[in-house]
Amino acid sequence: MRTTFEEQLNSLHLRFSEMGMMASEAIMKSVKAYVDHDKSLANEVISNDHYINKREMDLEKESFEMIALQQPVTSDLRMIVTVLKASSDLERMGDHAASIAQETIRVKGETRSPEIEKLIAEMGDKGTSIVEDALEAYLKRDSKMAEEVARRDMDIHIESNKINELSIKAMQEDGEYVLSGSSYMLVASYLERVGDYATNICEWVVYLNTGHVVELDGKHITSDEDMDEN
Amino acid sequence: MRTTFEEQLNSLHLRFSEMGMMASEAIMKSVKAYVDHDKSLANEVISNDHYINKREMDLEKESFEMIALQQPVTSDLRMIVTVLKASSDLERMGDHAASIAQETIRVKGETRSPEIEKLIAEMGDKGTSIVEDALEAYLKRDSKMAEEVARRDMDIHIESNKINELSIKAMQEDGEYVLSGSSYMLVASYLERVGDYATNICEWVVYLNTGHVVELDGKHITSDEDMDEN
Repeated sequence: MRTTFEEQLNSLHLRFSEMGMMASEAIMKSVKAYVDHDKSLANEVISNDHYINKREMDLEKESFEMIALQQPVTSDLRMIVTVLKASSDLERMGDHAASIAQETIRVKGETRSPEIEKLIAEMGDKGTSIVEDALEAYLKRDSKMAEEVARRDMDIHIESNKINELSIKAMQEDGEYVLSGSSYMLVASYLERVGDYATNICEWVVYLNTGHVVELDGKHITSDEDMDEN
Repeated sequence: MRTTFEEQLNSLHLRFSEMGMMASEAIMKSVKAYVDHDKSLANEVISNDHYINKREMDLEKESFEMIALQQPVTSDLRMIVTVLKASSDLERMGDHAASIAQETIRVKGETRSPEIEKLIAEMGDKGTSIVEDALEAYLKRDSKMAEEVARRDMDIHIESNKINELSIKAMQEDGEYVLSGSSYMLVASYLERVGDYATNICEWVVYLNTGHVVELDGKHITSDEDMDEN
């Protein structure tokens, strides 16, 4: 009976990681589609998003059944709760990838700025690598790595500010850039959220190891014990 | 012992609803700050966001302890899992309210379009009312109401498209509108997400009642039994 539960837990763990890879691949592809103006790749991302949503549903169901039937405690329960919560972050990454893919289709054929698209490609690389490393920290249960990865989220915010500034400048100088420029700003805001969700995954890694819910937002680290509420 | 558990469950339920009201108030205030160009109200929203984050942490902790110590099954467990998952949606609403508040500060003093800001105010009202009604459906455990509320999310998307079109037009016609116009588009995208999160809450209401995970996205309703994955 115990072995079965451990097998189930292991499978849950792997299926969650797999979902993470699906999300990270979706982001990577959506940014590639966007900067390559590749409508067919964008459509692929959009139509594959339901696999990510479906996986979240499956993980919810499996987690629920494991809790109900096996009544796990402490670290086992903590792992299941982590999968339950963190799968929302992965699902939202998938949503944002789909939104970026939708932007690809919306701005296809408009005047573009290669300079800003280069920055978006870089931001996409950074975003994808933060997601991948957050997942690696999860697999290794490495809190230190998780904290380091979360700190890199700051770079994403800096990149986003740069894209916003350049987009605004381009749009102000030439109305031809309004459609693409406003799209760049939206895409940058989506990638910023992706970084935030990756940070959440990092927070879950710390929780898995310590049982403490922490906030790692690149600027400061607070724990549930540092804060007081009415 | 049993009574104590029921009291705990009831308290969890109420504290979740309270968190929903905090999120809905944050959205309402952030949009008000934005359209009234009210920097001090915007700062209030930003500095209050940590109460929403803190509440999510508390609910996680309480849910975890209730599962570990009381080992609930079926509908009680379902309720706790709902709070665990849906509190993420509320937390993200709070984040988006804070982002709207930040936009208030960023575009303060720039050339504005009263016409588009009127639409944003309307979109904010619709968003807030969807959130409130989703919470009411949750409190009443009313699946039918939840499905109706989720359908209203379509109006939010329509409103967002209108704001995007007008913003692009204004920016193309006059470079003076680039800063505000791009901000309008971001704010509309944040409010769109708020609608998505409210839809998620509606999905949780259906789950609470039926045990089935469904997708209510305004266009179609699918359940976990309709979909097949490899």
